Amino acid sequence: MFSDRFDQLVQALRILPSVGPKSAQRMALHLIMKNREGAIGLAHALTEATNYIHECSICHSLTEDEVCNICLSTERDEQLLCVVESPADVMAIEQSGSFRGKYHVLGGHLSPLDGIGPDEIGIPHLVHRLSDGKVQEVILATNATVEGQATAHYLVEATKHLPVQMTRIAQGVPQGGELEYVDSHTLSQAVHNRMRMK
Amino acid sequence: MFSDRFDQLVQALRILPSVGPKSAQRMALHLIMKNREGAIGLAHALTEATNYIHECSICHSLTEDEVCNICLSTERDEQLLCVVESPADVMAIEQSGSFRGKYHVLGGHLSPLDGIGPDEIGIPHLVHRLSDGKVQEVILATNATVEGQATAHYLVEATKHLPVQMTRIAQGVPQGGELEYVDSHTLSQAVHNRMRMK
Ligand SMILES: [Zn+2]
Ligand SMILES: [Zn+2]
Repeated sequence: MFSDRFDQLVQALRILPSVGPKSAQRMALHLIMKNREGAIGLAHALTEATNYIHECSICHSLTEDEVCNICLSTERDEQLLCVVESPADVMAIEQSGSFRGKYHVLGGHLSPLDGIGPDEIGIPHLVHRLSDGKVQEVILATNATVEGQATAHYLVEATKHLPVQMTRIAQGVPQGGELEYVDSHTLSQAVHNRMRMK
Repeated sequence: MFSDRFDQLVQALRILPSVGPKSAQRMALHLIMKNREGAIGLAHALTEATNYIHECSICHSLTEDEVCNICLSTERDEQLLCVVESPADVMAIEQSGSFRGKYHVLGGHLSPLDGIGPDEIGIPHLVHRLSDGKVQEVILATNATVEGQATAHYLVEATKHLPVQMTRIAQGVPQGGELEYVDSHTLSQAVHNRMRMK
């Protein structure tokens, strides 16, 4: 519309989730007309975040360091490990305040049709992590979708030879729902009512 | 949550219109986990836009040059001038495809309680622009709000001494509505049915 760089900004804003062409235009105009300082701050925050945030080498959640704060913490229960699909799920569970153990992020779920098998979501790595005997209970908090359930069941099988207890978060989470969108209370209940799987 | 830079990115995204804390978190995670290239592109687009986009020296809309494309165009009718409150309104009218003249952006509306009088929205400058006699008709396309109507009426008074015709876009625009959110068809009708004010 006004100039090439304006159109480029509108296009660039379209990468944000649930931002259509009209909202992107409105956002671009708002930034240029009413908050240039904020726009410069946002550019800086995006650059910093993409440069410095990466996977934790232990749990595969997000961190700016070699190892994340949760993995480093001595105040969290090392005997409890919560397995989730993504860092978004770590965030959701942390915000529910229902869990004081450690995490393991798979980075996805089993999906054979898409070529995503156990190796692609690091299940051998997780089994290895469990084999030193420190973890007493694994809470399987993969999504309550078909793939999430299948991934949980696969993990129960894959750890049969280990003396670790495997539990699944309770079905307080609505069927077919994705963890990151569930409200904190429901999530808190689900962690509390987890049921033994093995 | 995950790190300082993650939290800073979430905060920075909050400056976008109608983005609350939950959407900002979701956007930050989406960018970091699924579209870092897009995030870098967005940072670049923001920097470029804030560095290069400024007011047109003639119409006060947005441009990267001294004078905008619409002011420069020889294909647009110089005898028709559309007066709007903001560049967002220029965009809305252009997208309705209903106008082929030139624009003048006031940069606001009269609002005595906020200390915004004729000088603050450049009315003397507009009157001066009209005084060379080139413009035959001014279409007053300020918002259909109380302030927008008052501004339109003020402009009719302020140009009484000039032989220019003043029209107001028709009340196809819903009462109390802000121009930038009106659909193109309604806007197009409103421009077409404009009524003579002087
Ligand atoms: Zn970690
Ligand atoms: Zn211009």
